Formats: sequence, structure tokens, C-alpha cells
Amino acid sequence: MIQPNMATMLAFLATDAAISPASLSRALRSAVTGTFNAITVDGDTSTNDTVAILANGESGARRIASENPDFKTFCAALEKVCRTLALKIVEDGEGAQRVIEIEVRGAPSDRAATHIARTIANSPLVKTALAGADPNWGRILAAAGRAGVPFDFELVDIKLAGILVCRRGGEYPFSEHVAHKKMLAKYVPIVVEMHSGKGTARMWTCDFTGEYVNINASYRT
Amino acid sequence: MIQPNMATMLAFLATDAAISPASLSRALRSAVTGTFNAITVDGDTSTNDTVAILANGESGARRIASENPDFKTFCAALEKVCRTLALKIVEDGEGAQRVIEIEVRGAPSDRAATHIARTIANSPLVKTALAGADPNWGRILAAAGRAGVPFDFELVDIKLAGILVCRRGGEYPFSEHVAHKKMLAKYVPIVVEMHSGKGTARMWTCDFTGEYVNINASYRT
Repeated sequence: MIQPNMATMLAFLATDAAISPASLSRALRSAVTGTFNAITVDGDTSTNDTVAILANGESGARRIASENPDFKTFCAALEKVCRTLALKIVEDGEGAQRVIEIEVRGAPSDRAATHIARTIANSPLVKTALAGADPNWGRILAAAGRAGVPFDFELVDIKLAGILVCRRGGEYPFSEHVAHKKMLAKYVPIVVEMHSGKGTARMWTCDFTGEYVNINASYRT
Repeated sequence: MIQPNMATMLAFLATDAAISPASLSRALRSAVTGTFNAITVDGDTSTNDTVAILANGESGARRIASENPDFKTFCAALEKVCRTLALKIVEDGEGAQRVIEIEVRGAPSDRAATHIARTIANSPLVKTALAGADPNWGRILAAAGRAGVPFDFELVDIKLAGILVCRRGGEYPFSEHVAHKKMLAKYVPIVVEMHSGKGTARMWTCDFTGEYVNINASYRT
């Protein structure tokens, strides 16, 4: 699903549900926000990313309208499929060793949370630290700080691979050795709790390895 | 001048000119915009970059006021010193093989030009192509396209190391071999002419090598 040149993505989804084009479009737009639009390998958006969905109604089940409860169920199922596909893109990122989930909570707004999550996810210093499985929470906090969202860093807690490493903007005592071992996993969650509001966001990225550079520097156009 | 952890920068300038604090501050702010604030190694702004200037008036020359012509001369000299120091930071970037000058011309505004130049300068795909001395103008145009500034790509010309490689948004015939050889230089200029206004900007960055990843992934905090 990923092409080295520009990470061109073409995703095609098909369902035998009976659903109107308007409801299907609404369901897909909603599903894409927190899945395909919440992943980044290198921050270089392709010129031609596409997600398309087709529904032919062959299931024989009753028609799903956006007013009835089936719609919610359909949306949840569609989001699950989209998340699975989106995470496969990250796993397959050039040179990626692991998938990183970045969750920002307690931001001034969802928009602010998304800005912060995206800045962390695209920071070369954060991504190289993750390549080395280094619990470098200072780089995470510094990336949040340059995201363009005003906040009080002395309220921020950070958990890396389930371990509290930063509390109220300062280091919280933890075992470097244990954290390093946990960060060698295939899937590493990072939680940034800002204690500054109710905004939340989730993004997924991969670590940044020498292999990424090799792949993208060595082939000729 | 560069520390691997967060690229912390502390620059101190001293002059024996006689100049008021207000004029000196004005001269320094002006000089910093197109020099220290126009460079990027990896886009990860430090939490504590500092440029400070001291003037003690020991030269015995007449006092420089912002109304008299000496001020312009002083500003030009100060900017030259700042540019020299700023470019040394880029040259010294972790793993850098070469300095890249990105000049954007003919943008809708200076602000738009700066956004585009900065997006190109921080694009991992552009910077890895530069590591491989690969004349991949498509990555430059794609980075400009995602900078958040509306423009008509069919008006854009791109020169790489002095060679016209893209004209009106399409490939302009050039020798891959000659371009590759020219791009192996220590200093590679990129000119993006947008033909969409009078905005201009210049940024400097370095290429993105496997050594950058090694340096930033391998040391422990």
C-alpha cells in the first residue's frame, strides 16, 4: 500500500450494505478523520492520496439511513476497518521498526491536541529517539512546546510505553533499563496529559531509522 | 555551536561601535530574521536559542543613530556576521554533507514564500534526495504544494544547482548525470520561481543522512 516515492496511497473499500450515497459519504468522512488522516510516516503528504468506498446493497439487510441506529453500528465497523488499514501503512513505513501511538489528552481543544500530536509525530528528534528505544521525554515535551499552542508545561505528564516518565513538566523517577526494554516492542504508546482542558487527539507514526534514509536517498528518480 | 540534544544555540556578538540600546536591538532583530531564523537542521526548534549583542562604544567613532546613514552600514555588517555564523550551524548539522540554499521567488507574499521555503527545507523526502545528490524536483514541488499556500503549480520553475529542471510545473530536459555531479558540491542552491507575485524568501538547511539518525538514535539521555 505504500510506494516509496511520495507515499502514494490508494485505498478501496467495498460493502454489501444497502446505504445511500449521502450516508455512506458521511460515514466515510467520519471514519477517515481518526484513521487515514491520523497517520504519518514522514510528514510528506502525497499529491494523490485517495480513499474510495462502494456499497452495492447485495446483503439483503435493511437499508441503513443516517437516522436509524444501524448507522452508528456501520460507522463503528467502517472506522475499525479504516484503522486496521491505516496502521498497516505505518507498520510498512520505510525502514520502520515499530508503530508509535501518540495520544494527547487534556489539551485546550481537540484542534490544539491534534496540532500537538502531529508535531510530536513528525519530530525527527522524537522519531530517532524512538528508533533507539530511548525514553527521551524531553524531546516529546520540546516538540509539544513548538506546536504553536500555548500551554503550561508545568502541568504536563508523559507516559512512555505505559511508564510515567514525566510529571508536572519534570522527570518522574523511572528505571531507564525497564523503559528501554519496553520501548523495543513493535507497538509503543505515548500518552501526553496536558491538564489544560478537554481536548484529545490520537496519531500514529513510526520510528525514524537509517534505513528510511537509505531507501529514500539511494534510488534515483 | 550546535549541541546534538535539541540543537541548543547560544550566539554572542560584540562590537566596539557607539550605538544606543534601542538602535542596537532594532539592528539585531532585523539581522536575525534572514539569518538565524532562516536556518533549519531538522525543524526541531530548541527551547533555549539565544542571540545576544553587546556594544561598548570603545571604537571612538561617532555614535550610530538609526536616523543617520551609518546605521544602514552597521546593519549590513551585522547581517553579514550573523549569516556567516548561521551557515556554520547548518554546515555543522548532525551528519550533514552539504548546505542547501532554498530561494523562493514570485510567491503571493513574503509570508507565503517563507512558508514554502520552510516546508521544502524541512521535508524528509527532499532532504534524503539531497543526501543522495538526486535531482528529484518532484519532491520539491510536492513539498511546496503541501505548505498551505494556494498557488498554480503549472506556473512554477525550479532550478537545482543552477540547472533548470522543471518549467511550468513539468520536467525540463536536463542531464541527470551533470545534475547529480553538481549536486555533490558542499553548497547546493535551489531556486523555486512561482510566477505568482512578488514575495521572496531564503532559507538554509542541510541534507538528511543516515549519520543524522545514528547520532540522534544512539546516544542515551
